Amino acid sequence: MKGRICDNTAVNVYDDETFFSSYIALREGVNYNDLLETPAMLSLLGSVEGKDILDLGCGFGKTSRALIDLGARKVTAIDSSERMLAKARNEYGHGRIEYMRLPLEELDRIESSFDVAYSSLTFHYIADFRKLLNDIRRLLKDGSMLLFSQEHPISTADYDGYWNEENSAYTFSGYLKEGKRESRWFVDGVRTYHRTMGTIITALSECGFRVDAVLEPAPSQEAIKALPRIQRELEKPSFLIVRASV
Amino acid sequence: MKGRICDNTAVNVYDDETFFSSYIALREGVNYNDLLETPAMLSLLGSVEGKDILDLGCGFGKTSRALIDLGARKVTAIDSSERMLAKARNEYGHGRIEYMRLPLEELDRIESSFDVAYSSLTFHYIADFRKLLNDIRRLLKDGSMLLFSQEHPISTADYDGYWNEENSAYTFSGYLKEGKRESRWFVDGVRTYHRTMGTIITALSECGFRVDAVLEPAPSQEAIKALPRIQRELEKPSFLIVRASV
Repeated sequence: MKGRICDNTAVNVYDDETFFSSYIALREGVNYNDLLETPAMLSLLGSVEGKDILDLGCGFGKTSRALIDLGARKVTAIDSSERMLAKARNEYGHGRIEYMRLPLEELDRIESSFDVAYSSLTFHYIADFRKLLNDIRRLLKDGSMLLFSQEHPISTADYDGYWNEENSAYTFSGYLKEGKRESRWFVDGVRTYHRTMGTIITALSECGFRVDAVLEPAPSQEAIKALPRIQRELEKPSFLIVRASV
Repeated sequence: MKGRICDNTAVNVYDDETFFSSYIALREGVNYNDLLETPAMLSLLGSVEGKDILDLGCGFGKTSRALIDLGARKVTAIDSSERMLAKARNEYGHGRIEYMRLPLEELDRIESSFDVAYSSLTFHYIADFRKLLNDIRRLLKDGSMLLFSQEHPISTADYDGYWNEENSAYTFSGYLKEGKRESRWFVDGVRTYHRTMGTIITALSECGFRVDAVLEPAPSQEAIKALPRIQRELEKPSFLIVRASV
């Protein structure tokens, strides 16, 4: 779900026309997802050959389809945005991908079980992280993996300033003040939830996951060549990636 | 070891006369250790009744003695600073505490095994984190615990600025640029090693530890009353605490 659930209504910012068109334009250009986040996720994924994968917040389906191309047996791809799913079915459809409209808050409606739960840049939209983890845990077979990315906790804290003149320093506050944040990203009022690194890692452990790897990805030289400003990531990471096993 | 080992010499900043007297004055006043770090560590420690504890970087021994008072069977307390150990033996000596001068780089000289490895604000002085973890792992019995605190990775990155006028924002850079840092703390050239959260957690997992809890402690109301500026911790944490099991 590259979106949000507002107070249990079906409102999802990714279904907002302005947001949707701006987001798609971003993703179709040279972008942080393709240069940094997706390669980092794949570096931790290992072989998916023959595996059943749950893609949590599949968005427009690019990764769901990539997982099939990497050999997955089946991908169950859920999102709460109709617009994203329509684009997914149209552009990244496949006989072994099932695209479903389902908020991550309603995972108890899924009856299958999976070898891998994969989620790209979605968890920071979810208010109740422990419920989410418990729901995912129930859907995973023994010996399976949860691999997710989210906005880095330094980024979901309060952004207070600016890069300095050399674009090489970052100012923030409110790191230990967890909870809802609203910010402008294409449109006003995009809602995310700030959780500290400690809350995230401890919740995983307490919900039955073993944390195997934490990655705050750095851009490659090729990525910096393609998009010079991405070297700011060396100063302050945008993404947190976690691989955990059960 | 509340100190550093410089290029395998016995030089330790905690043995510097100016540093030592300034540090002791700090610790004898109202301070972050007593108000924030020690209570947070103890909150994750659980019962130490009858346990053999290795205190890594015991400093002047206050916690080593506290662990005995909490019921530990024996505390083996190591540090590389002669001055700190002299104060420890003098003020916090006990028949069940063995104070030893030993750098954390030489843990292979210890032959006992332990139920708990405890380390307060020492690991950021150590250059080779994986060697340290592997050495500790070898000294721990099955079913035992490693509990450590260190300066938070946001703090060991480059400090670039200032709190804003309201003292409520923090500016940093170089988070993904790991390695040696030198800064002024009482004296010039205090050497620490910056590692990211990802490096720390992943190394623990790869060295055979299960990460059970990560805590970035927030000050209590009582702590804020005793030392008002400690409320800045809510904006940017100073400490990282990790509990891991084997």
